[in-house]
Amino acid sequence: MSLKINPLFVEGILTRFIRDELGKHGFRKGILGLSGGLDSTVCAALAARALGPRHVLGLIMPYGNSFPAEVRDAEKVARRLGIRTRTIDIAPQVDIYFSAHPTGSRVLRGNKMARERMSILYDYSAREKSLILGTSNKTELLIGYGTVHGDMASAINPMGDLYKTQVRALARHLGVPDSIVKKAPTAGLWPGQSDEREIGLSYAELDEILVDLVESRKTLKEMTKAGFKTATVKRVLQMIRNSEFKRKLPPIAKLSPRSVGHDFLYPYDWGK
Amino acid sequence: MSLKINPLFVEGILTRFIRDELGKHGFRKGILGLSGGLDSTVCAALAARALGPRHVLGLIMPYGNSFPAEVRDAEKVARRLGIRTRTIDIAPQVDIYFSAHPTGSRVLRGNKMARERMSILYDYSAREKSLILGTSNKTELLIGYGTVHGDMASAINPMGDLYKTQVRALARHLGVPDSIVKKAPTAGLWPGQSDEREIGLSYAELDEILVDLVESRKTLKEMTKAGFKTATVKRVLQMIRNSEFKRKLPPIAKLSPRSVGHDFLYPYDWGK
Repeated sequence: MSLKINPLFVEGILTRFIRDELGKHGFRKGILGLSGGLDSTVCAALAARALGPRHVLGLIMPYGNSFPAEVRDAEKVARRLGIRTRTIDIAPQVDIYFSAHPTGSRVLRGNKMARERMSILYDYSAREKSLILGTSNKTELLIGYGTVHGDMASAINPMGDLYKTQVRALARHLGVPDSIVKKAPTAGLWPGQSDEREIGLSYAELDEILVDLVESRKTLKEMTKAGFKTATVKRVLQMIRNSEFKRKLPPIAKLSPRSVGHDFLYPYDWGK
Repeated sequence: MSLKINPLFVEGILTRFIRDELGKHGFRKGILGLSGGLDSTVCAALAARALGPRHVLGLIMPYGNSFPAEVRDAEKVARRLGIRTRTIDIAPQVDIYFSAHPTGSRVLRGNKMARERMSILYDYSAREKSLILGTSNKTELLIGYGTVHGDMASAINPMGDLYKTQVRALARHLGVPDSIVKKAPTAGLWPGQSDEREIGLSYAELDEILVDLVESRKTLKEMTKAGFKTATVKRVLQMIRNSEFKRKLPPIAKLSPRSVGHDFLYPYDWGK
């Protein structure tokens, strides 16, 4: 297995996926958070092609003026694609909370911010009768690099089966400007945050390891033999294990014949 | 199938479930939102027995002074159980948001409030190194009477396989005061809100229908024959179908051999 994709084929699958899923739920419009980064740009580009740009709303949700360049990039993306935008500052809610509940932890602050963005996105999805398009990629989902009930929350997640490296390839195919394709990925939780510095690996290295472990089911021994550092592979495995809870619904204690999250599934013609 | 439970047996299953799940994640403490209502009271009582009352923190999160009786009930519950509490007003964050984004919709306001409570609960779960115990019951989960990424969010959900009627039976067995067992259930999103009025059915009726449809797999025809109103059963079926998305993770377009939410599951000894 390699990380190579056929971008035209992937574009076809994903635009159809977006259209089909919206149709199932009776929606014609999509809404997503627009950060100015790679993932939300690619998602917006796919949505614009799938639904028509006027049916896509990008919410730009900066924290005050902390990320002026990111906001400018998000606006530029929206203009190029012809999608609508709305800019909503999350600082008032976040600041009033932390003034009563102070913390020195950037992680706590970052998670509260991600959840505030989710909450606003859901609020506007209801106001605008639009379905929320998620922007999590497979790399983030596998290592758990995201806030549960924050940026990981969505109604449908078109790019959840594409590694970051593959999202980048798709971006090039979709004509995303180089400035966005090449900039250092950041979760945007504090100024200067860098995903790769925080994770301790480049996405290129990480994706090489993930694709071998997950898609090719290689063992730690095989990975070491192939030249990967044992400690690094072990750390990646640990990240996958530790974030399992982020990829699952809350477990429910089973007591009945058919339990939510275990075996309650109904056939399509149920009750007809 | 009936709604009858053996409360002693259920108590044993659920307290063990709470202990086991916390242990798996390396936690000794639990945290939950305490509303003064039946579900969170029962969950708190189970947690107190499973973990010891000093290892349970109940967050009381009123909206200003809108629900003084509920806050008093929540405090009374905590005192009786001997668990710790912390009271956090959600009004500042909610008000500052809606002052910039006004709405006349009680549902929009209610959902924002539920998500603010979730966000605070997750913040404090990290501050207190405590695992979040969910308080959703099976009735709510099946008809989707809850806010996704709001009150439906948790790390583990002990009572998710108990219908409301069964939660009430368990409450009696656990010694929950009559005033709480008998009061009218409310989601607490606005003063005077009544679950049963909003749903248009009593929990007793609703649970009778649900248990026949879900556990006994009865058809609409059989239900009508048994004396249920066709229109009512159809409406319940519709509620179950319309809320399917709340019981699932966001769908991901499948592109690879092993996809999150489809078929990426690792064996326990993976990478050893």
